[in-house]
Amino acid sequence: MDLDALDRELLKTIADFHGISMGAFNIRKDGKSVERKSTKNIIIEPKVDKSGINIVIAPNTKNEVVHFPVLLTLSGITDVVYNTIEVGENSDVVLIAGCGIHNPGSKKSQHDGLHEITVKKGAKIRYIEKHYGGGEGKGERVLNPKTVLTMEEDSVVEMELTQIKGVDSTVRITDAVVKKGAKLVVTERLLTHGDQEAISKMNIILEGDGASAEVISRSVAKENSKQVFKPEIVAKAKSKGHIVCDSIIMENGKISSSPAISAENPDAELTHEAAIGKIAQDQLLKLMTLGLSENEAVDVILRGFLK
Amino acid sequence: MDLDALDRELLKTIADFHGISMGAFNIRKDGKSVERKSTKNIIIEPKVDKSGINIVIAPNTKNEVVHFPVLLTLSGITDVVYNTIEVGENSDVVLIAGCGIHNPGSKKSQHDGLHEITVKKGAKIRYIEKHYGGGEGKGERVLNPKTVLTMEEDSVVEMELTQIKGVDSTVRITDAVVKKGAKLVVTERLLTHGDQEAISKMNIILEGDGASAEVISRSVAKENSKQVFKPEIVAKAKSKGHIVCDSIIMENGKISSSPAISAENPDAELTHEAAIGKIAQDQLLKLMTLGLSENEAVDVILRGFLK
Repeated sequence: MDLDALDRELLKTIADFHGISMGAFNIRKDGKSVERKSTKNIIIEPKVDKSGINIVIAPNTKNEVVHFPVLLTLSGITDVVYNTIEVGENSDVVLIAGCGIHNPGSKKSQHDGLHEITVKKGAKIRYIEKHYGGGEGKGERVLNPKTVLTMEEDSVVEMELTQIKGVDSTVRITDAVVKKGAKLVVTERLLTHGDQEAISKMNIILEGDGASAEVISRSVAKENSKQVFKPEIVAKAKSKGHIVCDSIIMENGKISSSPAISAENPDAELTHEAAIGKIAQDQLLKLMTLGLSENEAVDVILRGFLK
Repeated sequence: MDLDALDRELLKTIADFHGISMGAFNIRKDGKSVERKSTKNIIIEPKVDKSGINIVIAPNTKNEVVHFPVLLTLSGITDVVYNTIEVGENSDVVLIAGCGIHNPGSKKSQHDGLHEITVKKGAKIRYIEKHYGGGEGKGERVLNPKTVLTMEEDSVVEMELTQIKGVDSTVRITDAVVKKGAKLVVTERLLTHGDQEAISKMNIILEGDGASAEVISRSVAKENSKQVFKPEIVAKAKSKGHIVCDSIIMENGKISSSPAISAENPDAELTHEAAIGKIAQDQLLKLMTLGLSENEAVDVILRGFLK
């Protein structure tokens, strides 16, 4: 595999990928696939018309994991990728995406990833996407993920979207159509610091009776960073939706949170709640009386909050 | 007073005004002031450059009420009015606005009212605005109120905004700037039915330390009606804001609720919650076992909800 120690470290951080996998995977580095493996049930092929891959998961595939992380290790690169994923009926699989940027120089490094995921009838997936930026250079690290999810009848999707640290600018878009009896849970965790900016937009349409969606957003804006949240759930059927946004602001951090719920069916039940505030002083004091410094106490609280 | 029985009925409905008042008032009917009275502490004058009045309330005015309702009783009329209200320091008064449209014909009757209210240091007001549409005609009844509120230090404002029924289309805008130590509570109640549409936008800026704002929205969308809520609180200081939106949808009613909270100060505490659903079935059943018909039970629940 054409990967050095740094690449392996990034892979570990963003995809919990240790270089040895019994399952299917595709590793993309600086705009090219550097390694790919299909399995009997999970076929990964490059797209012929544009940059990216097709992942086709056979019906009834159970307990398999697919990794398809992306690494950027050059300064001044813009990598755009289109991935199409089809999860066969009654499968139960884990998809691990994620992108790590190690920008060694002074130019901007950017990754724009579009994932189209179709989850067939009765299938279940856990989709994990971590974003991380690092590197000694001062070049900007930009990540713009877009995920378009179609959930067929009675499918179940858990999405865990995390931006760990070091991403200077991000526009995150998550669109989902949830059909009859299907269930979606999206958990997003964002930490921004320095002068970083993050925008997260979600549009979830509950299209079939018995569909449900839950959006859980936890975010921390430190220093001079800014975050904007715009999750929306539209209920077009007898369905349930809930949005919870909890945010912590520190120093000059700014957060704007505007979840929207729209009921277009009289049997829809939609709720949301949001709170923005600073770290609870009583928690902080409690940890400090246990012997932690203020910084350590803050760190413990933030880790718990984003866990 | 140039008012007939119908006018008096409308006045009672929208302004709890029974034609006899010890206080200051201005009654506007079909685009003209028909009656006006100032008192020692509350001076009402017509504007010279445009349609509308200036209300100036002297400092330290206590326990006085000003009525300034608007009536439209013609079909095919568009009435635009600009009212400027200044509430002097340390006053404690009640302002009762409101508009009633009795449209007897087939043409649109529309009232656009812009209220600019400045509440001086330490003053306290209760601002009540009711909107109602009636009349045997099929002409549209349109009400577009805009209120721009400036709250100086330590002032207190309670706004009660109600759209009772019969208003075909409304765009309601409420903007407020809340300075140091000032406290704003806005309660909005909206009922729409038929093919009515209602849009309510609020923008509240918490500008000074110790400022607070609470927005309570209760709405019912019946039949084919549509409502859109966009309340926003922006905290630029050590301040507190809370938004609660509760909505009931019936038949084909549609409601979209997207409260926004933006923290631009690390000591801001902002929260919101919203829920959209139909009438709780257990409440309905309980009332029906007490002998009410389904319609009566619904009516009792809605009246309680909007009270």
